[in-house]
Amino acid sequence: MPSPFIQACRRQHTPFTPVWFMRQAGRSLPEFRALRERYSFFELLASPELTAEVTLQPVRRLGVDAAILFSDIVAPLAAIGVGVDIKPGVGPVFAEPFRSDADLARLRPIEPDEDLQPMLEAVRILHAELDVPLIGFGGAPFTMASYFVEGGPSREYARTKALMLGDPGLWRRLLDRLADLTIAVLRAQVGAGAAAVQVFDSWAGVLAPQHYERHVLPVSARIFDELRGLGAPMVHFGVTTGELLGLLAAAGPDVVGVDWRVPLGAAWQRVGAKAVQGNLDPAVLGAPWEAVAAEADAVLAAAAGRPGHVFNLGHGVLPDTDPDVLARLVDHVHARTAT
Amino acid sequence: MPSPFIQACRRQHTPFTPVWFMRQAGRSLPEFRALRERYSFFELLASPELTAEVTLQPVRRLGVDAAILFSDIVAPLAAIGVGVDIKPGVGPVFAEPFRSDADLARLRPIEPDEDLQPMLEAVRILHAELDVPLIGFGGAPFTMASYFVEGGPSREYARTKALMLGDPGLWRRLLDRLADLTIAVLRAQVGAGAAAVQVFDSWAGVLAPQHYERHVLPVSARIFDELRGLGAPMVHFGVTTGELLGLLAAAGPDVVGVDWRVPLGAAWQRVGAKAVQGNLDPAVLGAPWEAVAAEADAVLAAAAGRPGHVFNLGHGVLPDTDPDVLARLVDHVHARTAT
Repeated sequence: MPSPFIQACRRQHTPFTPVWFMRQAGRSLPEFRALRERYSFFELLASPELTAEVTLQPVRRLGVDAAILFSDIVAPLAAIGVGVDIKPGVGPVFAEPFRSDADLARLRPIEPDEDLQPMLEAVRILHAELDVPLIGFGGAPFTMASYFVEGGPSREYARTKALMLGDPGLWRRLLDRLADLTIAVLRAQVGAGAAAVQVFDSWAGVLAPQHYERHVLPVSARIFDELRGLGAPMVHFGVTTGELLGLLAAAGPDVVGVDWRVPLGAAWQRVGAKAVQGNLDPAVLGAPWEAVAAEADAVLAAAAGRPGHVFNLGHGVLPDTDPDVLARLVDHVHARTAT
Repeated sequence: MPSPFIQACRRQHTPFTPVWFMRQAGRSLPEFRALRERYSFFELLASPELTAEVTLQPVRRLGVDAAILFSDIVAPLAAIGVGVDIKPGVGPVFAEPFRSDADLARLRPIEPDEDLQPMLEAVRILHAELDVPLIGFGGAPFTMASYFVEGGPSREYARTKALMLGDPGLWRRLLDRLADLTIAVLRAQVGAGAAAVQVFDSWAGVLAPQHYERHVLPVSARIFDELRGLGAPMVHFGVTTGELLGLLAAAGPDVVGVDWRVPLGAAWQRVGAKAVQGNLDPAVLGAPWEAVAAEADAVLAAAAGRPGHVFNLGHGVLPDTDPDVLARLVDHVHARTAT
């Protein structure tokens, strides 16, 4: 019998609303911080046992209804030898950002069995150990490209947009290579035991809708087209995507992530006949419990009456979040929605 | 006869679409950078002549249809003695952030003639020198509070939101004091010669609409209510405000700023019977001219057929922007819309 998470992705009735949290594995958990003191980010990713352990930590502590493979949007780029570091408190930083056609050669095809050996071994360990579904982790081409072109996190994405509008041919070649990478990575994760996948286009919401539609959507759609046959539900996520929700849905996922800037009911109308995931503001978790519960109830009320809601935050867990609040929130959502 | 900018704010027919740019005075201009090498930000604000000079620079070079008083959202806080610095490349940084009821006492009433003497003298100089309207500059309570509570710029606004949801009474007292400050500052600017005002709620778009409506809108509305009788058109602006546009309009301005994430036509529907200002993505200006012109034409096409459009960017000019592109864009908009 499928799990509530998988059922919700398929818009089937569930015994309760399933819950997981983006970045549930990470700095909000003391057991993660303890590991992070001993290992760098890429050391964690290089060890199947450590990757599995970090993925399992929130499942044990919080009682969430899904695990998500501990990874990063740029991990596949690192796996094929593109020089990138994850700086604490900053994010991915590329030694040599993408600048011209010549840089396309740095994006060689990935050989999952070799290049992703630790990641796939972690998936196999998790598949054996987990009682809840494992969500595979992949980056969408726009967000991957934005890090690679900017050289790191950005506020303005000026270089990325200048490339997209100024040299749309090169932009498309870059995105196509990145899409090939994500397709291979997610196919391999599902082959090793992931029951669903999430494609993170975290920063797509910095784009005007007409630019997303022309320069990003066709490439993202190819990812979902090529993975659909695997039978694993596919989630697509980004923030500040209010105006893009219909286009993100059109790309072809089964589930669309919704941040907190759009009321869930309005978001669902734009998404259409898909499941939705979200949409509590992560910052709410820093307020007193009564406020947290009231805000969670408002999300549940907006989702009530039709199947297909995965409860989540609108973006990742903030590092200062109290894990006890997360655990209490899981129990609260389960209790409020139990049928 | 009123200027095209004022006419557009009032939704009257104009001989061409008026243009100005947020942050038109600033680091994109070499003449500004030259001054900034010799003076700190607050040294510029402390001198009426330098404030006026910096405000005039883009009018001379770019041919824009309005000037905006060179200032900062936190300038009134500095003027009443709250310790704040503007760090280059960072933004406002408070030595002692707002934490509790006791900090309300630091927000004493402002005495414009004393506390704002250099600012108001700059407005008088500009009123005498300018051939185009001067837009007064004020911060909206939410964005001012976010800087004061976080201690500086933020990505997550976690402390701000925790205060807002966790202690709504204190939050309201804080916002009311900040609104009083903005009302006094803008009234004084108009008294000294500003022909319009813009109230910057730059970061309001980080809020869920229901939080904005309950915890921010009533306070922002009081600003517009109290200033309406001055007769100066009032602009209200923020980014990532797609879902808030109707609420920003309900606060009572004459003109609502629109970032590039919402197509201007859709934005105008949400705003209703008001003028709109925007909405070119500032990052577009880094693309080749043909792309810039095409994007500007798309904005103009979305605004065509009804009066009440002020052409602007969806957010401030990026520091690396070529001033020649800005000047060319002003000419382009004028030529395309001349009747």
